[in-house]
Amino acid sequence: MAEFVNVAVDAMGGDNAPLEIVKGAVDAVNESSHVKVYLTGKEDAIRSELSKYTYHKEQVEIVNAAEVIETAEPPVMAIRKKKDSSIVKALNLVKEGTCDAYVSAGSTGATLVGGQVIVGRIKGVERPPLAPLIPTEKGCALLIDCGANVDARPSHLVQFAKMGSVYMESVMGVKNPRVGIVNIGAEEEKGNALVKETFPLLKNCPDIHFIGSIEARDIPAGYADVVVCEAFVGNVILKMYEGVGATLIKKVKEGMLTSLRSKIGALLVKPALKNTLKAFDLEQYGGAPMLGLKGLVVKTHGSSNSVEIKNSILQCITFTEQNINQKIKEKITMEEN
Amino acid sequence: MAEFVNVAVDAMGGDNAPLEIVKGAVDAVNESSHVKVYLTGKEDAIRSELSKYTYHKEQVEIVNAAEVIETAEPPVMAIRKKKDSSIVKALNLVKEGTCDAYVSAGSTGATLVGGQVIVGRIKGVERPPLAPLIPTEKGCALLIDCGANVDARPSHLVQFAKMGSVYMESVMGVKNPRVGIVNIGAEEEKGNALVKETFPLLKNCPDIHFIGSIEARDIPAGYADVVVCEAFVGNVILKMYEGVGATLIKKVKEGMLTSLRSKIGALLVKPALKNTLKAFDLEQYGGAPMLGLKGLVVKTHGSSNSVEIKNSILQCITFTEQNINQKIKEKITMEEN
Repeated sequence: MAEFVNVAVDAMGGDNAPLEIVKGAVDAVNESSHVKVYLTGKEDAIRSELSKYTYHKEQVEIVNAAEVIETAEPPVMAIRKKKDSSIVKALNLVKEGTCDAYVSAGSTGATLVGGQVIVGRIKGVERPPLAPLIPTEKGCALLIDCGANVDARPSHLVQFAKMGSVYMESVMGVKNPRVGIVNIGAEEEKGNALVKETFPLLKNCPDIHFIGSIEARDIPAGYADVVVCEAFVGNVILKMYEGVGATLIKKVKEGMLTSLRSKIGALLVKPALKNTLKAFDLEQYGGAPMLGLKGLVVKTHGSSNSVEIKNSILQCITFTEQNINQKIKEKITMEEN
Repeated sequence: MAEFVNVAVDAMGGDNAPLEIVKGAVDAVNESSHVKVYLTGKEDAIRSELSKYTYHKEQVEIVNAAEVIETAEPPVMAIRKKKDSSIVKALNLVKEGTCDAYVSAGSTGATLVGGQVIVGRIKGVERPPLAPLIPTEKGCALLIDCGANVDARPSHLVQFAKMGSVYMESVMGVKNPRVGIVNIGAEEEKGNALVKETFPLLKNCPDIHFIGSIEARDIPAGYADVVVCEAFVGNVILKMYEGVGATLIKKVKEGMLTSLRSKIGALLVKPALKNTLKAFDLEQYGGAPMLGLKGLVVKTHGSSNSVEIKNSILQCITFTEQNINQKIKEKITMEEN
């Protein structure tokens, strides 16, 4: 028997749990014989969903968890109190070494807190960032950090740049990824205190390909592969993608329905348009990895369907097979010399 | 003779100067008999442009200035050294009381620095923010601050909320404008140190309509009329509008050209689409006011054409006639009681 990449999946997390989560897990094991999924959550509910499908039984295991952490719950308290929740049980599987990775569409806060508290940081990593892939004209870029760790220090941002470079090179196959720091102008002397302090540190970093400042306007155009910023700014960037995208698409649709002529045109362009815009959909890339932890922790959208769950699980195979955490450890330690 | 609103216009600023600037000025005085424009810059060049048009001579005056401040010049130095530049001369017209307002498509940095140094702040105003109007599904919102003053303090943000409310109510006619603070979640306990400190201050502000946190995703949807944030975040929001917008429109166009069927459709939807998207164009609103100064300072896009210049000049009439600065003074002073 080949050795599996073992992935703990929170079967109760997200808007469509457990139905879409279980379906995504089954699809993943049916697509790859390299992966084994541990579904944590209410055993009866999971078993009843699983009974709908055929799959290799040895690739799926149920780990019963009676509790569920709701999105609205304060995360620190939830992680501490709900020991028998699907999130805590799944994270514990990673902590104890049964699993290599964790995937959840549930509470972002609980995943971020639990990732740090239960799985734990790689030695030397100051802060584990949440780093979603965002679409660009040229493909995609890693936006690092979008997590809950606001008010970052320059040394954090330098580590984000290093970890992001490892991820883009080893998981996404981008050779010598271009690292940019989000700024309000292209010149080195521009920026707030954090960016001004970080800029020379990145410039003097020998093991990344730093291209300087990147203005927010140039992010969707794909000027950088690794987009470094502190979490508050990262969150604003991610949500402007969603917000401007949603509003513009709505306007385009409205515009197409204003006259009979344009309505006919709309029918003709619809299929082609749908395909092109799909390539610019934030959700196509599966989950966002939380980097710098002793195992891989992946947070997918709360609205995830089975396709996103499947992709997030399969993403864990590359991450584990490429020894990303070993590479991160080496790159972070290099900094300390 | 009716009393004019006097507007100093930097005839040499922007990519299309002096041609489009002079045309915009002429169009403005031809549209309103309430305004008089002072064009600052190279007299010969301005006179030669003016000779193309007919207009009421008493509504246009030329103020010669031999120098031009380039966009790339360090602004503090430029303002100090180039006393005979079109920007410094125009700002001086406001300072000495000849003009009520200033409009420039030239160097943003020089305008921001010059606004503070030459025109000066209203007593009590800690920082004059740059506040562009941004399109939303429901109309537009004021994004305050997008200026060069990064690393703001909570008291600055409270003043931005007050000044922005005055502007939206008196210039844009929005009754009891909704004020939101940009945050990474809707809950009061979320945010970085700045937002957490500012939130209760805004909540206890009796003279604004504070609706709490606004996530970046909800800005284009129009959840708030006054969007309060510090300048770094404001700059990122503004530029994400531009960047995501440009990339999406490009994708839509590409999508429409992928097949013969969609090409025909594209021809049919084009006129309707163009109209709808125009309503979501960042440049339609004319210039961004710099609030809290002893006169009105308006910065328009570097790429401004005559329409944007005209709109920016006409905007100064409402601003002046509505006594915005008096209202800002009252609202800011109220805070000190």
